[in-house]
Amino acid sequence: MFSTLRLTYMTLSILCMLAVTAAADTRKDIQFPDIPGFKTIICDFHTHTVFSDGYVWPTVRMDEAWREGIDAIAVTDHIEYQPHSDYVSTDHNASYEVATPAAQRKKIMLIKGTEITRGTPPGHFNAVFIKDVNPIDTPDFMDAVEAAVEQGGFVFWNHPGWKGSEVGRWREVHQTLYDKEWLGGVEVLNGTTYYPQAHEWCLDKGLAMLGNSDFHRPSMHKRTETGDHRALTLVFVKKFTQDGIKSALNAARTAAWDQHRIIGREEHLAPLFKASVQVFAPHHVDENSLWVEMKNNSHLTYQLRRTGDLGPETITLEANATIIVQLESDGQNRKKTLEYTAENVLIAPNKGLPVTLIVPRKR
Amino acid sequence: MFSTLRLTYMTLSILCMLAVTAAADTRKDIQFPDIPGFKTIICDFHTHTVFSDGYVWPTVRMDEAWREGIDAIAVTDHIEYQPHSDYVSTDHNASYEVATPAAQRKKIMLIKGTEITRGTPPGHFNAVFIKDVNPIDTPDFMDAVEAAVEQGGFVFWNHPGWKGSEVGRWREVHQTLYDKEWLGGVEVLNGTTYYPQAHEWCLDKGLAMLGNSDFHRPSMHKRTETGDHRALTLVFVKKFTQDGIKSALNAARTAAWDQHRIIGREEHLAPLFKASVQVFAPHHVDENSLWVEMKNNSHLTYQLRRTGDLGPETITLEANATIIVQLESDGQNRKKTLEYTAENVLIAPNKGLPVTLIVPRKR
Amino acid sequence: MFSTLRLTYMTLSILCMLAVTAAADTRKDIQFPDIPGFKTIICDFHTHTVFSDGYVWPTVRMDEAWREGIDAIAVTDHIEYQPHSDYVSTDHNASYEVATPAAQRKKIMLIKGTEITRGTPPGHFNAVFIKDVNPIDTPDFMDAVEAAVEQGGFVFWNHPGWKGSEVGRWREVHQTLYDKEWLGGVEVLNGTTYYPQAHEWCLDKGLAMLGNSDFHRPSMHKRTETGDHRALTLVFVKKFTQDGIKSALNAARTAAWDQHRIIGREEHLAPLFKASVQVFAPHHVDENSLWVEMKNNSHLTYQLRRTGDLGPETITLEANATIIVQLESDGQNRKKTLEYTAENVLIAPNKGLPVTLIVPRKR
Amino acid sequence: MFSTLRLTYMTLSILCMLAVTAAADTRKDIQFPDIPGFKTIICDFHTHTVFSDGYVWPTVRMDEAWREGIDAIAVTDHIEYQPHSDYVSTDHNASYEVATPAAQRKKIMLIKGTEITRGTPPGHFNAVFIKDVNPIDTPDFMDAVEAAVEQGGFVFWNHPGWKGSEVGRWREVHQTLYDKEWLGGVEVLNGTTYYPQAHEWCLDKGLAMLGNSDFHRPSMHKRTETGDHRALTLVFVKKFTQDGIKSALNAARTAAWDQHRIIGREEHLAPLFKASVQVFAPHHVDENSLWVEMKNNSHLTYQLRRTGDLGPETITLEANATIIVQLESDGQNRKKTLEYTAENVLIAPNKGLPVTLIVPRKR
Repeated sequence: MFSTLRLTYMTLSILCMLAVTAAADTRKDIQFPDIPGFKTIICDFHTHTVFSDGYVWPTVRMDEAWREGIDAIAVTDHIEYQPHSDYVSTDHNASYEVATPAAQRKKIMLIKGTEITRGTPPGHFNAVFIKDVNPIDTPDFMDAVEAAVEQGGFVFWNHPGWKGSEVGRWREVHQTLYDKEWLGGVEVLNGTTYYPQAHEWCLDKGLAMLGNSDFHRPSMHKRTETGDHRALTLVFVKKFTQDGIKSALNAARTAAWDQHRIIGREEHLAPLFKASVQVFAPHHVDENSLWVEMKNNSHLTYQLRRTGDLGPETITLEANATIIVQLESDGQNRKKTLEYTAENVLIAPNKGLPVTLIVPRKR
Repeated sequence: MFSTLRLTYMTLSILCMLAVTAAADTRKDIQFPDIPGFKTIICDFHTHTVFSDGYVWPTVRMDEAWREGIDAIAVTDHIEYQPHSDYVSTDHNASYEVATPAAQRKKIMLIKGTEITRGTPPGHFNAVFIKDVNPIDTPDFMDAVEAAVEQGGFVFWNHPGWKGSEVGRWREVHQTLYDKEWLGGVEVLNGTTYYPQAHEWCLDKGLAMLGNSDFHRPSMHKRTETGDHRALTLVFVKKFTQDGIKSALNAARTAAWDQHRIIGREEHLAPLFKASVQVFAPHHVDENSLWVEMKNNSHLTYQLRRTGDLGPETITLEANATIIVQLESDGQNRKKTLEYTAENVLIAPNKGLPVTLIVPRKR
Repeated sequence: MFSTLRLTYMTLSILCMLAVTAAADTRKDIQFPDIPGFKTIICDFHTHTVFSDGYVWPTVRMDEAWREGIDAIAVTDHIEYQPHSDYVSTDHNASYEVATPAAQRKKIMLIKGTEITRGTPPGHFNAVFIKDVNPIDTPDFMDAVEAAVEQGGFVFWNHPGWKGSEVGRWREVHQTLYDKEWLGGVEVLNGTTYYPQAHEWCLDKGLAMLGNSDFHRPSMHKRTETGDHRALTLVFVKKFTQDGIKSALNAARTAAWDQHRIIGREEHLAPLFKASVQVFAPHHVDENSLWVEMKNNSHLTYQLRRTGDLGPETITLEANATIIVQLESDGQNRKKTLEYTAENVLIAPNKGLPVTLIVPRKR
Repeated sequence: MFSTLRLTYMTLSILCMLAVTAAADTRKDIQFPDIPGFKTIICDFHTHTVFSDGYVWPTVRMDEAWREGIDAIAVTDHIEYQPHSDYVSTDHNASYEVATPAAQRKKIMLIKGTEITRGTPPGHFNAVFIKDVNPIDTPDFMDAVEAAVEQGGFVFWNHPGWKGSEVGRWREVHQTLYDKEWLGGVEVLNGTTYYPQAHEWCLDKGLAMLGNSDFHRPSMHKRTETGDHRALTLVFVKKFTQDGIKSALNAARTAAWDQHRIIGREEHLAPLFKASVQVFAPHHVDENSLWVEMKNNSHLTYQLRRTGDLGPETITLEANATIIVQLESDGQNRKKTLEYTAENVLIAPNKGLPVTLIVPRKR
């Protein structure tokens, strides 16, 4: 019809807002491809509830994990810090107990854990894949870690730059833990803070890199294509079981995923990028240009900067989307090799992942 | 410059997602004008916490109220239903105690309350503005209500259509409560459900109409111009104090605000509409038409349908926005009177508010 | 760490807004599964540009189609109505000419078309897959349609309820067109308006159902998971070529896709639903309940209402998401069959698609 | 009621998406306070249409301006670059002519303008408040500028860092223009690019700073509280008339507003900040802390960094919102003075505005 303004549909707009809470029990998967030999799963190994200094009932952490597309989660209440103890049980196993039926219903893998919260140094540590928190409630810090390890627990250092003058320092106590093989990883990402020095340590010492939310309040995240998510750990597992995850942590097959970047090792991130991005043969060629589709099948927007001779200076491969890149034509229909750095795929502090995009010749 | 595609700013887009949680401690006021003689305040008289069958620590309700632009809130945990009692204190005053310092810091008016949760009938009732919940924990229902009233409490009937065959029926017990002047109001709105019959009762019997969230889970609302909000009660107070609110409830000076409509009495909603909407003199006149700005200064989108001869069939006055309405010109520069019904301003079940829009003559 | 409020990341929030326009050249595919024997493609057969009464340069329609995940599009400027002719060429082939290079670069299939815009009746008609618009610019309406058909054009009736007293009436002229086999389809959906009577006609007479934007202004849609999109036609093709689409239209293998519903024939919509929805074996069984995941792999949120004995009264299968449905346990581990109507999958006016959800037994 | 999951409201969620385009004809005002002696208005002095190398009909620029809350806009098609001339009139006054009735209906102040587009150097220049574009279409650049100035036009240099080796250089030709008093301003902001050197020049030479969209494509902005907007110029006028704006430009009373920052002179930005931000007396005092509300009544989120002794290290005053700041108590109820820099209020390149927040004593 002619371009008359019609208002009829506007009356419906008022109903729009009701949709907001509807998403609460809907899960949108997080999209990362598997890498050769390993399945990619999404985990958060650090959350709190009312049973320590958090503000939610443990079941809320399961509802959130479902909604946000998380596969496995640990509830890690502080042993030593229970500010709600006037009103709430101080049994260290309570939060796991309460969360379990909710996890089963929501098909979330619940990992038993706790936070060992002493002074700084040594700092705070999480023990996950443990069996009983109570024996870990010991006066001596080393005893606590030993008790966790004896139960088969995996222990990692939390937010190693949080507080005090020892921020960012690898001290004797950490060396001792490491020498005893009690320390398996370090948070390179806690909430919105990245610890480059921890990234360095993990690379040097073969430790797992963790990225965790450390949520105390309710999560406001509703996972969508736009990339809104909490800090998370990608774990590259052989099997998606509790043991499978623990094995992957022990083998340091992890990466930490921020809102806008991923932090890890080249050996995992190179195949992850490769599995994420498809480059198509030119769909159109005109006088001066080739027009090429590039598709990103992951939920990370890749930020590329040219290091070679061909291609635009920067390419933004938006999460779960396709772009068209215009390339200068050399008049010859042959494969083109574009060299870039994925600047937000950190394989070391300040070091992006080198990537190659191969444009097939036009068919 | 020429229309070259530039990618430089795209690199910034990746930072976008970090903003999501930043809003958590930011308040955006809810915008409703005052009406002659009364200040308009925004209240939620029905919420739960871990101390009954809710899932959040009481302080979370204060954080949410702040973020969502709510002025006063009651935490109304069930007396009789405490499914978390294996882990959490059963002291009925605990949630108020815990919430108090958070309310003070966030400048939220915290109203002490509880939910009296017996069979159906009589149904569920909230008592607010009480002093001590424990004396209300009595075996007999009428004793409980009496205890609340004796403390100066205001008692209202919750979601009067919730369950069982007695749904939507005003039974003897309600008449008794009413005759004793123990029943001050009814929820015409609970969560996303509107109870037209309750609307009718309130009109007939002079009871306050309430609209409440009845939240058990964390709220996912972030109040914005788009109108996303929980069910709320507008209270028209002389003074914004605890006593001022109670007086307004007792005088039935309230309206219930859904996502897309408002439910109340003509005596309050007519002046509210009038104070919300400005109609300007035509800013332009051409051969056939007058062009007129209309501005809605409230956070409710008004849906108007023409009942008179002049104006478009429908007008949507979007919340907190201005529209331009095209009117047929009669060639004479004089005031025009447009008669409409505001279909989503319910002054009775299925009865919209009649409104008059006066377009001044062009200056 | 402890639940200290940290502000550091807030400084980044300010950069967030820059992302808005970045999406302009990013394509997010529309997700609908293929059905047995046919590929599902997404088309808009009705748009305007400055060359008739539209407001954009023809290349903009290609940019929009790319961004919104549309596969094929027709630009169908009016022959008889060219209000911009004081400033813009009146050559009827101009908009196709201008759009062509942009379509090639963006990999959009551009279909040549025009709108034949006479009085009502007969109403407005689109001719698509034509070769030259100029011969269709004839004084007589039937001559115009014949000229289009002679070029191999496919002709359909637009918004058959737009204007005047003949709204929604199948008149002699339409019967004549139909008898001559010149009329291949009818818009059952134009913009946000659904024409139930046209739905009926198409079912009765074997005509293709079309859903088109009829855009004159720039599109404000950015396709995302939330389902924001223009009115579109799903075409079930054997081959994704111009001929393949024309064959599908002639065989009436189409459905019209509104924001919140799909309109078509049972023979196409039943397999589309089946291909869209996966029901998993229960992942958890407890005393009273089975917990079952259901995943919707399409971009339409399906609204189901129970017609059988098992399952919740309503199920909302949100677009591109997974939900968990709680079923009552009968204590026996066997396959369960749930009967529902997909109320927003219209196989006739007011008639939803009957669907069966089969829950496999727990492994 | 108890925390039963209810699905009834979900059926409404499907209607949500219809709201998207409804906003197209709704205006949400941009909120900036006036400053002492001047009214603050919002302008874009640089846009294109199909009449040069833009992609929209001129009326679209008026619709967009209305929707986005812009007060005054110039359409500035290139004189020398008309790539659509095969199809579109080359009359340089056509876009103004076409836009005029739309501007009148939408109550947008339309400023007549053009872009003088020669080589670089001199670069591109806009002339606004002109009367007739045709006499400005001269072979010689200086003649063109002179013709514009003779008509009473205001001439400014566009994106002075766009292209070639002369980027960011103030050359002889610019000095000549300046000496003749033909050059009134420079774009310090074009689209998403800020030109710090131009900022410097404007400060040194008393030129007006401009921030403009330079839109060629349709705008995708829908102005909301979130701060999504095009590059704009704030003009501090005595009267909101064409002459009032021109006078303000000649007096260099302007600031350029990016998505996340504002660029200008201290003499305008200091009062603008002051008029934007309210600091309240503490609403609560406890043992160690004062709790203080701060409200930002503008649409710019202010990013503050502490320069004095009191207050948190950073404060983010979100646009059109209120925050609560926790201050250390000194046990004395007296006024507190907090010294900060507003880091995104640039009064020179890399130089934020010094601001003082005064917290009154508790009443």
